[in-house]
Amino acid sequence: MHSALLALDWGTSSLRAYRLGPCGRLLERRHLPWGIMNLPRAQCLVKEEETGAAFERALGLACGDWLHADPQLPLIACGMVGSAQGWRETPYLGMPARLDSLATRLERVPRAGATPLHIIAGLIQQGPLPNVMRGEETQVAGVLASLTTAHGSAQDLLICLPGTHSKWVRVQGSEVRHFDSFMTGEIYALLRSHSILGRTMHGTGTHDAQAFGRGVETAASQAGRLGPLSTAFSTRTLGLAGELTASAQADYLSGLLIGHEVAAMASVLRSTEAMPRIVLCGDEALCTRYARALSVLGFETPLQMPAATERGLWHIASLAGLA
Amino acid sequence: MHSALLALDWGTSSLRAYRLGPCGRLLERRHLPWGIMNLPRAQCLVKEEETGAAFERALGLACGDWLHADPQLPLIACGMVGSAQGWRETPYLGMPARLDSLATRLERVPRAGATPLHIIAGLIQQGPLPNVMRGEETQVAGVLASLTTAHGSAQDLLICLPGTHSKWVRVQGSEVRHFDSFMTGEIYALLRSHSILGRTMHGTGTHDAQAFGRGVETAASQAGRLGPLSTAFSTRTLGLAGELTASAQADYLSGLLIGHEVAAMASVLRSTEAMPRIVLCGDEALCTRYARALSVLGFETPLQMPAATERGLWHIASLAGLA
Repeated sequence: MHSALLALDWGTSSLRAYRLGPCGRLLERRHLPWGIMNLPRAQCLVKEEETGAAFERALGLACGDWLHADPQLPLIACGMVGSAQGWRETPYLGMPARLDSLATRLERVPRAGATPLHIIAGLIQQGPLPNVMRGEETQVAGVLASLTTAHGSAQDLLICLPGTHSKWVRVQGSEVRHFDSFMTGEIYALLRSHSILGRTMHGTGTHDAQAFGRGVETAASQAGRLGPLSTAFSTRTLGLAGELTASAQADYLSGLLIGHEVAAMASVLRSTEAMPRIVLCGDEALCTRYARALSVLGFETPLQMPAATERGLWHIASLAGLA
Repeated sequence: MHSALLALDWGTSSLRAYRLGPCGRLLERRHLPWGIMNLPRAQCLVKEEETGAAFERALGLACGDWLHADPQLPLIACGMVGSAQGWRETPYLGMPARLDSLATRLERVPRAGATPLHIIAGLIQQGPLPNVMRGEETQVAGVLASLTTAHGSAQDLLICLPGTHSKWVRVQGSEVRHFDSFMTGEIYALLRSHSILGRTMHGTGTHDAQAFGRGVETAASQAGRLGPLSTAFSTRTLGLAGELTASAQADYLSGLLIGHEVAAMASVLRSTEAMPRIVLCGDEALCTRYARALSVLGFETPLQMPAATERGLWHIASLAGLA
């Protein structure tokens, strides 16, 4: 089947490339470690590269064969590639945001003798504590496009996007109204790799669901009211007291932190009138953990939506007349 | 003046040695980087050292001159030197605890041809989330000894000991009833050194009191209800929005985290009947930060007590008949 769009999810630590056919059908996908902070080096020593040369090289190495086979293939990208450290800084879209308007403000980056790259803007939420996203807006667009197709129109939704910096995005009437960020994934990795808690942990490579559930329940309990700065220490003290094996400690800590995140969202939602529908999308194993925590905290079973990023990239490219 | 006691506060990352005279008067003090995880190496290659040889070497290098001048000088120590990774594992004292009983359970470590070392036990609090301390019990003993001398008897107290893992210790009727731990200091250091937040921070070496206060107020405000996993990200987003300079970000983050810790303690205390007197002891600059956060959270001005460690070491040695 012939290609209709080359769609990129280009983040800080990795590059995901999707070759999409007519109607956005996924033909092929690749996952490379060439995030914007980790671009492949030139083969020979280059003194001063032109802006974009390293990005062009990564693109060529990742999907040069696709571009060679179809030199007119349109290109679209989302993520940190549009940040100040990316290929071209792309101004944020303000909040509240109708995501279809992302299609009218693509940043067009010319490429010598080739089709240009179109970068999707991120979102910025002004206020006492500003908030930003780059990449997640495209996942949300993918969720909304799928739900609109499937159910006629998007309802009142709370879309949870777990990851290094997880996002909770409130959508009402097809408009993004608010979002919150949590550094849960990054702080978990830091505590495992660099803190005193990591010293007593032994990895087994398998998920210890019981230890994870215990962590979530602790965060949600009366004992969790002092917050993660305090409860995290119990990973060590339960070990010292002989109540948590070394191999269970990482999953217990994961449950604690995800539990605190979900409990914080629950406490905010309980003070609002109507409970929105929860949608989870992202890495499957991580979504399973969040679904478990949502269940412990009394939420209804969330809708899980895989492949939101490539759907969002296709949807925005279609609206812009690229695909 | 002649020496009466060699008192050691021997932790994970440093060794503090105090030469005390009659009545516990401080004659001399030394601060060395030889924590139990960082003992000085042997001059020549030693294949298999006897247990304790590296500790003996550190002690000799730190205060060999004091011991040489008075070979009968009694020795007492508190801290991680009594842990499984220390010179000799010293069993914890259970809770609730009368600290004077620490004097009757000193762990006696013989030293060839020299006076033995006496190690003070830490405290363990059993329960759904166990908790431990090693070293802080001696600071608390020092606070209680000073207050008893000054005011007749210790009142209902909440003693805050800021540090890598800060402790909040509730004392009623001279008995330690409960304590909580927070990993605030360690998590702050991790976020500065290893997270995305550290990338945009520029240190100036001076304390930015305004940025610190802003962090505390954010944690204490409605915006802080999502907790530190969420608010920490505002260190970055306020920078991106041009509302927080690179040089202000570290102190803002410090204020956020200490603010969340103090706010968590405040929320627990508000549900109890009587407000205890707050006592702060530890590093002076850190105590000033905590005093500021306590003030923002509506606490009365805390009593600040320096030199609690050496007073506690002296008090316990005196009760044990060592000094």
